[in-house]
Amino acid sequence: MKALVYEGAGARSWTDVPDPIIRDPRDAVIRVDAVTICGTDLHILGGDVPEVRPGRILGHEAVGTVVETGAGVTRLSAGDRVLASCISACGACRFCREGRYGQCRGGGGWLLGHTIDGVQAEYARIPFAELSTHRLPRELPDDAAVLLADILPTAYEVGVLNGGVRPGDTVVVVGAGPIGLAAIRTAQLFSPAHLVAIDKAESRLQSAKNLGADMTLTPEQVPLGAIRSLTGGLGADVVMEAVGVPETFELCQRLVRPGGRIANIGVHGKPATLHLEELWISDVTITTGLVDTSSTPRLLDMLAGGQIDVTSMVTHRFGLEEFERAYDVFANAATSGALKVLLR
Amino acid sequence: MKALVYEGAGARSWTDVPDPIIRDPRDAVIRVDAVTICGTDLHILGGDVPEVRPGRILGHEAVGTVVETGAGVTRLSAGDRVLASCISACGACRFCREGRYGQCRGGGGWLLGHTIDGVQAEYARIPFAELSTHRLPRELPDDAAVLLADILPTAYEVGVLNGGVRPGDTVVVVGAGPIGLAAIRTAQLFSPAHLVAIDKAESRLQSAKNLGADMTLTPEQVPLGAIRSLTGGLGADVVMEAVGVPETFELCQRLVRPGGRIANIGVHGKPATLHLEELWISDVTITTGLVDTSSTPRLLDMLAGGQIDVTSMVTHRFGLEEFERAYDVFANAATSGALKVLLR
Repeated sequence: MKALVYEGAGARSWTDVPDPIIRDPRDAVIRVDAVTICGTDLHILGGDVPEVRPGRILGHEAVGTVVETGAGVTRLSAGDRVLASCISACGACRFCREGRYGQCRGGGGWLLGHTIDGVQAEYARIPFAELSTHRLPRELPDDAAVLLADILPTAYEVGVLNGGVRPGDTVVVVGAGPIGLAAIRTAQLFSPAHLVAIDKAESRLQSAKNLGADMTLTPEQVPLGAIRSLTGGLGADVVMEAVGVPETFELCQRLVRPGGRIANIGVHGKPATLHLEELWISDVTITTGLVDTSSTPRLLDMLAGGQIDVTSMVTHRFGLEEFERAYDVFANAATSGALKVLLR
Repeated sequence: MKALVYEGAGARSWTDVPDPIIRDPRDAVIRVDAVTICGTDLHILGGDVPEVRPGRILGHEAVGTVVETGAGVTRLSAGDRVLASCISACGACRFCREGRYGQCRGGGGWLLGHTIDGVQAEYARIPFAELSTHRLPRELPDDAAVLLADILPTAYEVGVLNGGVRPGDTVVVVGAGPIGLAAIRTAQLFSPAHLVAIDKAESRLQSAKNLGADMTLTPEQVPLGAIRSLTGGLGADVVMEAVGVPETFELCQRLVRPGGRIANIGVHGKPATLHLEELWISDVTITTGLVDTSSTPRLLDMLAGGQIDVTSMVTHRFGLEEFERAYDVFANAATSGALKVLLR
């Protein structure tokens, strides 16, 4: 089959690889029907995720059709249309039993396109298939469902829930890429007073407005002054970092109010400076996290029921054979205006 | 009267100053009966708390007797024996109404020995006296009560409660000075499986053992390996920073498990490096905080009832006129073995 293979820092190719096979009784193999590229894939290509080795098939966001199941899989059958989630979970370890599937110690966690071959391919092996997939209702189209593989639960769990957004809050999202936009949309579910997006790109800020932001700022527009004006001088109740570079994480520290929360969602390749000389006294909570996908069934219901609609985030569509071009378009979002690119 | 005055970085003197007077109807003036020196005072002398200006009387931990009250004070009278808490609170602002007195925006917060004159003196003015003092029962001696002014509620709220210590946890306290020791003692209230103290000084580690630590380590004893052995390779559930320098905060980041919590208690004068390149994926929560003293009434009950006894932490006793010597003994804890020094 063909697959998108990581060839070492900065390099990738759409190339021939062996077909995946069942290796464990809990595996399934799916035919990939729709797949996207994640900002995390760009972080991998940039060398920020060194545990990804050359030769690895990338990708952890797909919708597919089950073609084969291992002997231990009883709740899935060939022909089932499923979401392949970015998190695989053994279901039995201490962390899985607490619903912290992202931290699975039984062989799961973030595997696809990370420590095993991923879903940017014609076919993919999905380990722990019963807990790592979600059967999809017919009314949910691929281009909506695929956003449940990573960005919606990540933004919701690691951003909105870790950030503890509550009614009346002033919420700032730094970075209005797909994750930031999904954070804006799902933060709205908690009725904040203000939802502020900060990004360099005007086109992304426009998308943020469309998805619910009531204020948008570029870094040049003195976010600190704007947020203070909005909050009687205090700062934001919740600030989410959705970029993954030290500068934006440090901006979050300046924008948060005493007693507020910083929820880091970004994938970071470098350390950041933590200004404890100012923050030690100010009751700030900082969270980091890999998504658990424990919210995915509920988000799926909300998507299928029309309570959330984020398909406007899919800006570009390609055939699978156009993977190289899709990466170029996605990586050059500043000129292409790409948010999510979908391949089928 | 005489008072201990901050004379600028590194300098202090026990010198003559004007007596305090009532300035606001909510004030009280107390005669200081027992007073201690806090590690924070050393941070001030070291220049870590730049908002403290030369000429300031230091000190925020005292027991005293009310000698005069403002016209608005109805619940205190001359002759009452009270704890003067490190936190003053207006009681009416948004933060006070949430019990976050440390962040009071109505003119309170940490005032004594910080933004107004403190209690290392023969007399002291206590603003917002009704909410900033606690009437003491006769059975609670001064040397126990004075530990309620700061270290017990700080260790408990900012360390143990922010850290979310739960039964069965492995809890590491980095720094076994008075705050770290109080954190060890109050963490025990939640029945952790292991309570580990890390400090350079063997004498402090012995105190940690006496107060409940079941493992003690110097930084040379490879804390990472020891904590991993204790936790099946995972790391500690809760790590508390009770020193206030970048190195110890960075050690906390190495010791915490995925999904664990780092509670910073230390007073920091410098930024630290936050290793987001490792922590972004590991569900870590980091908290900072100034004590609210919302737990003080309950801690007072536990002390008075004998459920907690920490008076062993008072290692040295002086007369008020010996303040200069007391500072020397406290600042040179490595040789003097001082934990808390009490002046009467």
